[in-house]
Amino acid sequence: MAEPALVAVDWGTSRLRAALLDRAGQVLERSAADEGIMHVEAGRWAETLERHVGGWLRQNPAMKVVMAGMIGSRNGWVEAPYASCPADWSEIAAKMTLVRRADGGEVWIAPGLCTRNQDGVPDVMRGEETLIAGTHVGDGVMITLGTHCKWATLKDGRVETFASFMTGEFFAALKDHTILGRLAENPEDNAGFVRGLTAAKRKGGLLHTAFQTRTSVLLGDMPGAQVDPFLSGLLIGSEILGGLELTKPDGTLHLLASGPRGELYRQTLAAHGYKVIMHDPEHALIAGLARLMHLRGMD
Amino acid sequence: MAEPALVAVDWGTSRLRAALLDRAGQVLERSAADEGIMHVEAGRWAETLERHVGGWLRQNPAMKVVMAGMIGSRNGWVEAPYASCPADWSEIAAKMTLVRRADGGEVWIAPGLCTRNQDGVPDVMRGEETLIAGTHVGDGVMITLGTHCKWATLKDGRVETFASFMTGEFFAALKDHTILGRLAENPEDNAGFVRGLTAAKRKGGLLHTAFQTRTSVLLGDMPGAQVDPFLSGLLIGSEILGGLELTKPDGTLHLLASGPRGELYRQTLAAHGYKVIMHDPEHALIAGLARLMHLRGMD
Repeated sequence: MAEPALVAVDWGTSRLRAALLDRAGQVLERSAADEGIMHVEAGRWAETLERHVGGWLRQNPAMKVVMAGMIGSRNGWVEAPYASCPADWSEIAAKMTLVRRADGGEVWIAPGLCTRNQDGVPDVMRGEETLIAGTHVGDGVMITLGTHCKWATLKDGRVETFASFMTGEFFAALKDHTILGRLAENPEDNAGFVRGLTAAKRKGGLLHTAFQTRTSVLLGDMPGAQVDPFLSGLLIGSEILGGLELTKPDGTLHLLASGPRGELYRQTLAAHGYKVIMHDPEHALIAGLARLMHLRGMD
Repeated sequence: MAEPALVAVDWGTSRLRAALLDRAGQVLERSAADEGIMHVEAGRWAETLERHVGGWLRQNPAMKVVMAGMIGSRNGWVEAPYASCPADWSEIAAKMTLVRRADGGEVWIAPGLCTRNQDGVPDVMRGEETLIAGTHVGDGVMITLGTHCKWATLKDGRVETFASFMTGEFFAALKDHTILGRLAENPEDNAGFVRGLTAAKRKGGLLHTAFQTRTSVLLGDMPGAQVDPFLSGLLIGSEILGGLELTKPDGTLHLLASGPRGELYRQTLAAHGYKVIMHDPEHALIAGLARLMHLRGMD
């Protein structure tokens, strides 16, 4: 077995995922748990980390830990300041924040990124900057999926700017806490997804088009089994129209996504005429953390 | 005291409001309770109505009751079928549905209205058709406020078509069930409202612009006290842009609204350059019910 060299941790709102890496960035072991920052009592950060990666650290106490995600937010271990766009990866790496483990060892937390668009409107990301770093893509538009999706514009190895879309969170709130979810039936009929994409192109804006999720069923145009896929298509379609409007990509898009949801985005973007290059988020996160450490000379 | 002639009831999702009218449609007495259809056990409709208006009916058992609102939905007393746009008020009155009281007397329930836009996309209203009838406006664009707002296009005494906007329901769902409400502080600072209106005009769509509710506070651009007014301004601004896009009104708009929320709409529409004519919803509802009965020869 190759020698352990670095512990890489993705510590988000709901999950903690850790990987033990060798000097080449290859994964030697993995660990994961539902111990995201919303599940951990404030102040118990070092103790929770120790429980997950302590065994690895005892084999090699000089190893550093590097982390990305909401652990660096103001509700996490320490608020790691944002780097400001445009930012290259060296600048982002230089903004990493150091905290100490119970054994005195180093834990480095990646910064978030903030940007302001042409109107001065602010936006933030935390965790996605590390994912993007891990793809080693230096030019183009990259989309990351999540509760909030990010559309980042990369140029000459820098993140120029980016825009967030609350697509996943809107879906959950509208489905569970408005009248739109009431007529939904299972199992889902995915034909609703494409109908939702079509609805996203209609006039009047989302506050209007969303109501069709209900009226189409009320008036017998759509079965209840299509309700959730329709709402998903409407929101993903709205995001994609908004993202294309803001980023004006050339013919290629990079998509940091996996699984069924990634495939829905890939197909939809392809239907808009784009060549879509897929990147695996799990691999990108680890590669990104290793890259940030390398840029700091700590690999 | 003038002779009682008609009992008019607005029976919605959360409230029941009744009025005793004379032959001229003047209100003699009123009653109101939090016994909307969501609070009444299914099947207990006649009994609940009797509790509120039984005293009036015993004075004059021949009086008819006329109702509008969600009481005519599939979750209410009886599903009163929709009239289809374009529809004039005689056609709407002809679609009223009869149910019987415990004493055998007549209860007439106004129909809802349905429409299909140029793409065949359906929309529905239930209750607002009666409000609009009560204004006696025959031409122009009329906006009704509520959990769902409606923008109706009237022409030659007919409702040509209309569009719903889920503005109120989105506000509640986003404020209480997404990250957007987390940084809100009280008391509210209404300066946030105008900032939200400005944000509504920005590119990227609501899934993007909504996130500014959070990022502006995170990056120190906006105090927490402006969060809720900002979100309100963003949503009302989005509705108004969408409504204007769909209805393309000439220089005048009719607004069926009262109170502080009505005033926010009035000011915003005026800022868009429109002359706004206000109509009182409480008066309009009663006048609308009386008008539908008159058109059926039952006044």
